[in-house]
Amino acid sequence: MTNPVLPEPAPLRELIDAFKRLPGVGERTARRMAYHVLQNDVVGAQELSQALQHAVTALIHCQRCNSFSETEICPTCSNPQRDKSLLCIVETPADQNMIEASHSYYGLYYVLMGRLAPLEGVGPKDLQFQRIAQRAAETEVREVILATNYTAEGETTAHYLAEYLSAHGIKLTRLARGVPAGSELEYVDASTIAWALMERRST
Amino acid sequence: MTNPVLPEPAPLRELIDAFKRLPGVGERTARRMAYHVLQNDVVGAQELSQALQHAVTALIHCQRCNSFSETEICPTCSNPQRDKSLLCIVETPADQNMIEASHSYYGLYYVLMGRLAPLEGVGPKDLQFQRIAQRAAETEVREVILATNYTAEGETTAHYLAEYLSAHGIKLTRLARGVPAGSELEYVDASTIAWALMERRST
Repeated sequence: MTNPVLPEPAPLRELIDAFKRLPGVGERTARRMAYHVLQNDVVGAQELSQALQHAVTALIHCQRCNSFSETEICPTCSNPQRDKSLLCIVETPADQNMIEASHSYYGLYYVLMGRLAPLEGVGPKDLQFQRIAQRAAETEVREVILATNYTAEGETTAHYLAEYLSAHGIKLTRLARGVPAGSELEYVDASTIAWALMERRST
Repeated sequence: MTNPVLPEPAPLRELIDAFKRLPGVGERTARRMAYHVLQNDVVGAQELSQALQHAVTALIHCQRCNSFSETEICPTCSNPQRDKSLLCIVETPADQNMIEASHSYYGLYYVLMGRLAPLEGVGPKDLQFQRIAQRAAETEVREVILATNYTAEGETTAHYLAEYLSAHGIKLTRLARGVPAGSELEYVDASTIAWALMERRST
């Protein structure tokens, strides 16, 4: 339907193809983005171009938490007010951000930048399990919270991490699973209800 | 929910903000795109950066049809096999592309690169109505097909264009409106049915 049937200018075609590499962007959306920036937001196009270039060159991974940072140690890891006895392992910076937004965690993080995905060829080596073990084995760490997603892959990752880290005698915990805050039971899926029942607690 | 609560590296924040200027991209999607290119597709990020820069500098508007082109006259306009007696006026290059994809039109185009939108301050001057009139008044043009969208704004644009161009004694037509091909009447909206009835034709 949106196949290019007109002889398209090469720079336009290349821009559309470049947009298509972004997650969730297909031919039609990429085309809309390209037309938009060219017609209405040339300044935005130039800013995006520069922001991409700058981000790619300026951002490194924090040596402590592995998240994106401009410095070798990120501000979160170097913040003296953070509780060094807690280490929360998350899949992505987005997950880390969500936990921060809950304003209920003041420990440190380790960001996997992925999850075990055997079908995609992502194994323990790619996630640098050894580095995580080293980090978790530091004397001040008293508890490691496995906060990977409750998806098949996130669960697998948590499972393997637990096996890998338990050798070091560290206390491991996992985020509670249950009924979401503010939700009505009627609209919660059955497996969540099942988990909430299984992990019910006395009041 | 996705408000940055962590001290974010500036290059990351700038990249997210730049993505947010794209149509249909909010904070969450922009963040996903930024993390994606930084984590998994640095090459893609660089290609997008260059494609944006290249497109912005290399693309101009065709002097005949006003669509994006690398040359002063685009390949479509300079194609001798095109029927010069037909001029189809569309809102965007995307619309032009859809008409091409129907493989049922072999005339030339004029791309408005927008539509009349009084509320957004887009008037006849912005769309260069005078230039369109000049183009439509060329001796070889026998029929102008108004192929703007059947939205309120597209209709307004067609209406004004018709008024503006009719002074030149050019034959003006508009795309037929009716039941979409392959659709069942049961699922077609009432106003479309009403139009299809009003514009019914003898078989």
